[in-house]
Amino acid sequence: MEKGALLYEGKAKMVYQTNDESIVWIEYKDSATAFNGEKKASISGKGRLNNEITSLLFTKLHELGIESHFIKKLSETEQLVKKVDIIPLETVVRNLAAGSFSKRLGVEEGKELSRPIVEFYYKDDELGDPLLTEDHIEVLQLADKQEVALLQEKALQVNAVLRDFFKDLGIKLVDFKLEFGKDEAGQILLADEISPDTCRLWDIETNEKLDKDVFRRDLGNLTDAYENILARLGGQTVCTK
Amino acid sequence: MEKGALLYEGKAKMVYQTNDESIVWIEYKDSATAFNGEKKASISGKGRLNNEITSLLFTKLHELGIESHFIKKLSETEQLVKKVDIIPLETVVRNLAAGSFSKRLGVEEGKELSRPIVEFYYKDDELGDPLLTEDHIEVLQLADKQEVALLQEKALQVNAVLRDFFKDLGIKLVDFKLEFGKDEAGQILLADEISPDTCRLWDIETNEKLDKDVFRRDLGNLTDAYENILARLGGQTVCTK
Ligand SMILES: Nc1ncnc2c1ncn2[C@@H]1O[C@H](COP(=O)(O)OP(=O)(O)OP(=O)(O)O)[C@@H](O)[C@H]1O
Ligand SMILES: Nc1ncnc2c1ncn2[C@@H]1O[C@H](COP(=O)(O)OP(=O)(O)OP(=O)(O)O)[C@@H](O)[C@H]1O
Ligand SMILES: [Mg+2]
Ligand SMILES: [Mg+2]
Repeated sequence: MEKGALLYEGKAKMVYQTNDESIVWIEYKDSATAFNGEKKASISGKGRLNNEITSLLFTKLHELGIESHFIKKLSETEQLVKKVDIIPLETVVRNLAAGSFSKRLGVEEGKELSRPIVEFYYKDDELGDPLLTEDHIEVLQLADKQEVALLQEKALQVNAVLRDFFKDLGIKLVDFKLEFGKDEAGQILLADEISPDTCRLWDIETNEKLDKDVFRRDLGNLTDAYENILARLGGQTVCTK
Repeated sequence: MEKGALLYEGKAKMVYQTNDESIVWIEYKDSATAFNGEKKASISGKGRLNNEITSLLFTKLHELGIESHFIKKLSETEQLVKKVDIIPLETVVRNLAAGSFSKRLGVEEGKELSRPIVEFYYKDDELGDPLLTEDHIEVLQLADKQEVALLQEKALQVNAVLRDFFKDLGIKLVDFKLEFGKDEAGQILLADEISPDTCRLWDIETNEKLDKDVFRRDLGNLTDAYENILARLGGQTVCTK
């Protein structure tokens, strides 16, 4: 497989063409951003950590019967994935109240919801990724009713599997964001990443935050938190001390 | 019927007890507020206009088979209504894109939606009336699934009827907000008001705004706009010149 031209540079990853039209080469960057890009930093090691963690989680999901775009890890910061047309929705699953949910709706952070819920946000940086209702998704023609139902179903499947998996590692899966896309055949496939950048992960005993909130809220060393997650996942951690 | 103690003073109306436990006495005030109370003014005649218009519209809805809390108009600024426990949801129906919908979702104001949509907002001034998904409504226990379905159905019925009615008067019903409550028997009943404070109403030919946006956006004389609506509804207008 050959790395081709840069297709897209996002806030967290670079996307390159390959010599296979149906495959793209993803490189995880060391940049951290929050609040729609308002807060920025370069954090050495972050690209490696998210690449490792995402690779481990997509592999785990595959073992448990949930397919994704992930093909294989190429290097510390690179992976190959199936190319998809990303559906412009951020699909969020919440088990406990936190972040914007807590703030917008006045629910104390950490409160367990009576059941996991799925939210959709419009993946549009200019608009600041606004929350959408199902009617919005339909009239904006972002996805049809059947597709929305499928995204909800898949998101809840991922949640059921990951929640148990993280629990066994002493971690609460508070919430997370998924992206889906359509492959060549028009099939909806789980894509993008699943990492501490896109999940809220709290230590089950101490509620210590082991995710991007460490950066958003200046709670300490981000890579220490991500190394902690990687270690619990059984990944190859690097001694930085 | 006797006017009793003040039960509640809102931004637009006063609610008084009566000697009948199941009935309240509503007095429409001359105050105008927008942006969750940030912009305020006293506008002489506004209370009368909204009381007249709401009374006419609830009467029209009744004639067309849609029940509400409205019992009768008492005076220029007062009416009797059935007392309900207000469900803390603002139910919004949209036919054309406008206001927060346009701004949040990047859709040009005035664009016709492919179908009318219903949105729910959390009626909570402290939180700034945030948009809710159906999952939010359920986990916050604001209403159950069946109730949400009923609110949607009723809101779309009101829309179908009012849209045609306004069309015959040369007015586009762009969007509007409804409130529902539960009566003594636990039945869900349309309540609050339907007025240019709670609807967007545009002249069909000129797109002139004949609603609270005149106040929100400083587009001219508010009572002139509301008198225009009242006159088209065949109500008793007052010559203020
Ligand atoms: N399998 C895939 N095929 C094509 N594009 C993908 C795939 N998986 C993820 N992407 C896209 O790669 C882009 C780069 O990722 P990155 O996370 O850096 O973007 P971002 O800055 O978060 O957000 P944005 O998507 O708004 O640019 C994202 O747009 C993401 O949706
Ligand atoms: N039939 C009814 N029985 C009891 N209360 C009602 C009824 N109809 C409307 N209300 C309530 O009367 C109150 C006064 O109305 P008003 O429009 O002034 O309130 P507001 O300032 O808009 O908002 P808020 O409801 O947040 O105070 C509102 O809370 C409204 O929900
Ligand atoms: Mg991203
Ligand atoms: Mg009101």
